[in-house]
Amino acid sequence: MTAQILDGRAVAAGILDDVKHDVGEFIKEYGRVPVLATVLVGDDPASHTYVRMKANRCRDVGMNSRRIELDASITTETLVNQIRELSEDPEVDGILLQHPVPDHIDERAAFEAIAPSKDVDGVTRTSFAMMAFDEGGFASATPGGIMALLDAYDIPLAGKHAVVVGRSPILGKPVGMLLLARDATVTYCHSRTADLAEQVARADVVVAAAGRPELIRGEWIKPGAVVVDAGYADNRGDVEFEAAAERASYITPVPGGVGPMTIATLLAQTIRAARAHETARQNSAIPARNQ
Amino acid sequence: MTAQILDGRAVAAGILDDVKHDVGEFIKEYGRVPVLATVLVGDDPASHTYVRMKANRCRDVGMNSRRIELDASITTETLVNQIRELSEDPEVDGILLQHPVPDHIDERAAFEAIAPSKDVDGVTRTSFAMMAFDEGGFASATPGGIMALLDAYDIPLAGKHAVVVGRSPILGKPVGMLLLARDATVTYCHSRTADLAEQVARADVVVAAAGRPELIRGEWIKPGAVVVDAGYADNRGDVEFEAAAERASYITPVPGGVGPMTIATLLAQTIRAARAHETARQNSAIPARNQ
Repeated sequence: MTAQILDGRAVAAGILDDVKHDVGEFIKEYGRVPVLATVLVGDDPASHTYVRMKANRCRDVGMNSRRIELDASITTETLVNQIRELSEDPEVDGILLQHPVPDHIDERAAFEAIAPSKDVDGVTRTSFAMMAFDEGGFASATPGGIMALLDAYDIPLAGKHAVVVGRSPILGKPVGMLLLARDATVTYCHSRTADLAEQVARADVVVAAAGRPELIRGEWIKPGAVVVDAGYADNRGDVEFEAAAERASYITPVPGGVGPMTIATLLAQTIRAARAHETARQNSAIPARNQ
Repeated sequence: MTAQILDGRAVAAGILDDVKHDVGEFIKEYGRVPVLATVLVGDDPASHTYVRMKANRCRDVGMNSRRIELDASITTETLVNQIRELSEDPEVDGILLQHPVPDHIDERAAFEAIAPSKDVDGVTRTSFAMMAFDEGGFASATPGGIMALLDAYDIPLAGKHAVVVGRSPILGKPVGMLLLARDATVTYCHSRTADLAEQVARADVVVAAAGRPELIRGEWIKPGAVVVDAGYADNRGDVEFEAAAERASYITPVPGGVGPMTIATLLAQTIRAARAHETARQNSAIPARNQ
């Protein structure tokens, strides 16, 4: 293997250390603990595990998590109302709706009930457009984590050709927009792409986000390319790791690559949201004649 | 020349005929005339011309336009408040803010003051995300017009490689998302793209939206490709027309290609907005016990 590993675990640990420090400062300054609310619908074991991991990381960095668990049979309306309550609750800084939700629920309606100022998982339409327009909103957590990982290794993006395989609203589409905002030339491939091998073979940076194990063959990778594997189905990535690592200059392992970066981004965005909320409160408390 | 012309003037005329018919039906059904409000800031002659053309087309199809003209010196806050009033005005169905606005104004804040249900020019973050997520919102007018033009000639998109040159929030980015929603493989190129000629040479469909006259050389076009020129700077397109038309299968002229489609899309979306407003009013008028 010739590629250098993009060590998401190590980079995420560094980010979480910074978050922990920021949380300490925040508590000293404002006398309260930041809160991430997690909403889980139904009893999918993997989703329970993810939510528990997120709650554990919250505790590690000194934040509180508030876990809302709802029965799989609830209606969209009930879920939307629950999330709206959290959006209006002054004690809650960030809201995460664990997806996927059961099929009968309108996931988009539930996402849109999250106040943009608390959308620390970057799932709302507003957050997506702000990513696309480079307006500094909250990034979708996995795409934001991928960018932070590339930055940690000083990987140049401007003028490079990035190929994103996958086009989901919370992974493929936003990561492409974040790469475009960093001046990469960006190609979106997907299940209907006619010549996936050729498209991937031209990439300086490949982001695999299709959720199909080992869809991307190692032999397709251009020598020296950077390979980011955001797949996770069946505990395997979307990229044929061993063969790709023979050709790539940098590559993420699965697990230990993108996964840890997702949680780190979520918590980094939560402390950022908490600070923004306190700043907004202070500004609105200034008497009108001073504004 | 071997390419067939994508005749935007003729296709737009057909769409405007349909809109005129729909407006007639709407007036009979609801006893009022749909209204498009146009907001113009400052005295750029080209912008005045565009707004006047839009008002004329409104009249042609039987809709009313309400023209708001504001001094170039107004603040963002004044403009935002003006647009909010239009968003809340039950007589207004669609709102168009003519861009560009003067540099001191926060254009994004002004766009976001447009209620998504009246965003018939497709400029808000909500409209952008709904385009990207294929959720059936209002398309940005020019990208929506481009798609309607391609559809009028039954040009296949699924599995084709589309290259978009340009990445503005109301043209390049949304047209790429609309092409992606139609299952094209989509590449975004821009001023930092290292190998524009090579990228364009691989395209089955080229959408030129850079605003740089004749940036795209005819010799770059793959034989048989479809060429859509959304440029208009200095009355010239972004594509070297004569040379490109020797190689393309279909090509838009400038003028008479994308331009007329933009206004047609704007008005088609305005009558759609008017119907949606009436439907929403009827639903909210139903007594609660029947809901």
